[in-house]
Amino acid sequence: MMKAIDENTITDAVLEQASSTPDARLKQVMASLVRHLHAFSREVDLTPVEWLAGIRFLTEIGQKCTPFRQEFILLSDTLGLSSLVNALHDRRATESCTKSSLLGPFYRQDAPVMTLGESIVNKSSAPQICVYGKVVDSAGKGIPNALVQVWEPDETGHYDLQRHDPSEMDLRGCFRTNPDGRYYFRAVCPLGYMIPMDGPVGDMIRAQRRHGYRPAHIHFLIGAPGYREVVTALYISGDDHIESDTVFGVTESLIARVKRNDFASPLPTLPSLHYDFQLAAESRESLSGRVGADPSQITKKAG
Amino acid sequence: MMKAIDENTITDAVLEQASSTPDARLKQVMASLVRHLHAFSREVDLTPVEWLAGIRFLTEIGQKCTPFRQEFILLSDTLGLSSLVNALHDRRATESCTKSSLLGPFYRQDAPVMTLGESIVNKSSAPQICVYGKVVDSAGKGIPNALVQVWEPDETGHYDLQRHDPSEMDLRGCFRTNPDGRYYFRAVCPLGYMIPMDGPVGDMIRAQRRHGYRPAHIHFLIGAPGYREVVTALYISGDDHIESDTVFGVTESLIARVKRNDFASPLPTLPSLHYDFQLAAESRESLSGRVGADPSQITKKAG
Repeated sequence: MMKAIDENTITDAVLEQASSTPDARLKQVMASLVRHLHAFSREVDLTPVEWLAGIRFLTEIGQKCTPFRQEFILLSDTLGLSSLVNALHDRRATESCTKSSLLGPFYRQDAPVMTLGESIVNKSSAPQICVYGKVVDSAGKGIPNALVQVWEPDETGHYDLQRHDPSEMDLRGCFRTNPDGRYYFRAVCPLGYMIPMDGPVGDMIRAQRRHGYRPAHIHFLIGAPGYREVVTALYISGDDHIESDTVFGVTESLIARVKRNDFASPLPTLPSLHYDFQLAAESRESLSGRVGADPSQITKKAG
Repeated sequence: MMKAIDENTITDAVLEQASSTPDARLKQVMASLVRHLHAFSREVDLTPVEWLAGIRFLTEIGQKCTPFRQEFILLSDTLGLSSLVNALHDRRATESCTKSSLLGPFYRQDAPVMTLGESIVNKSSAPQICVYGKVVDSAGKGIPNALVQVWEPDETGHYDLQRHDPSEMDLRGCFRTNPDGRYYFRAVCPLGYMIPMDGPVGDMIRAQRRHGYRPAHIHFLIGAPGYREVVTALYISGDDHIESDTVFGVTESLIARVKRNDFASPLPTLPSLHYDFQLAAESRESLSGRVGADPSQITKKAG
């Protein structure tokens, strides 16, 4: 005769039914997920009304997603999951390297190729800064011809995609490091911003009385053949929200300071932001890819 | 200076940011959720590619939901969460009572009121059975005038909503117990069925090599003033999938046998299914409601 299913036996019943999963990794991930999901429900003694509120919340998040809006990534970001997945990814590197940070929803693969020293700014008339440094290997040796992709919000905290038609690109560019591994370009000093608050995640942030702000940052995606690609961001020292980033992207080693009279800068008349990025050698697990993605590749066109 | 955020410190960082939540229960539930979500990710060392697959899966589930289809409830059902929430709900009862089972997606509040002995069958010409028993309190005393709402799939495993326009109701009815607490009605012996397999949850069930079947059952929602409402189902003994229900609704105490020559039945010429339902007295926590809901009340109309 079958065993009674109760709050203690249900977990084993689910694991037993999923035990036929042929993909060993899927089986492992789903078993862990079910155990933790059940442990959570038991721990808080989840009620039917609360369960239904959770179903509604997740449904609304899914229905808020469009090719230009990924509300589930925003949920993952605001619950610290994206940052945790980044940290686990960093831990698997076999060599010393720059820490990862969130890719965010505004990356574009087709940013314009520019030469060193060019400005990524088209429309803003805000004062420019010089962002410069080296891309180095784990021994500190410069990596020539590394691809440095950069994108940032403007001095009001908006990305080009939030201001203009997607055909008009601004505040993004692709650079190649010189033979010494050096890069430099002109940019504006970005402003921090509030995450999109008009969806279910915004409701959550308000219910938790969180401020919803990200501190000012400049995004980087850096790669070179034979090296592990790094998705990261530099956070501008002094921002009010640098210790309370609502998506937990900031870590101390990614904070950089805007300096005046930096005579080491290739453009010493501008305020400068200096950072050297370190890439680890590629290992097999690098193939597991990076955190974040162009939202249009995740959510099919609505309708 | 701020602490470095890594795979160990991130959880406390999230809990600290959510510590301002004014609603104590929301704060408790979200803190537990974050701790278990993070523990899961650390335990399986979740990779960026797997994380992205999860984001895609959840997004597709949300986008599959319509007023007539609730794919997130189906996910909860197939991961055993709905059944676990039922079991936790049962455990909070202060008196002995019939166990809960899943409401499922086919409940309707507006089923026709019928008199005892009537048939809930309109269209099927399958042989009928007599379903009968009592609704009793925790001491075994009959509860008069209890409302017994019943719905079932037909002898091919389909509910009326799957076969006809929603205006045509079939295989559902509302009965009132007599002064002794007795109920009886005529029905068809239902067939089990496969859950909807054309969405992301079906993809998961296939990837896990699960059969996707529910065993044959008849749904009940029973209430009376002063008693805790029970949402449950009777599972027909002998069904091939009674020990492997893909949504974990079956528990031993809810299995009932179809009998011939049951001279205790009020309609002894028909095969019978006998079951007595026991209701616990209402307690304050009953107000936390029941598991499951009319999907049209959860998902807003698309478009």
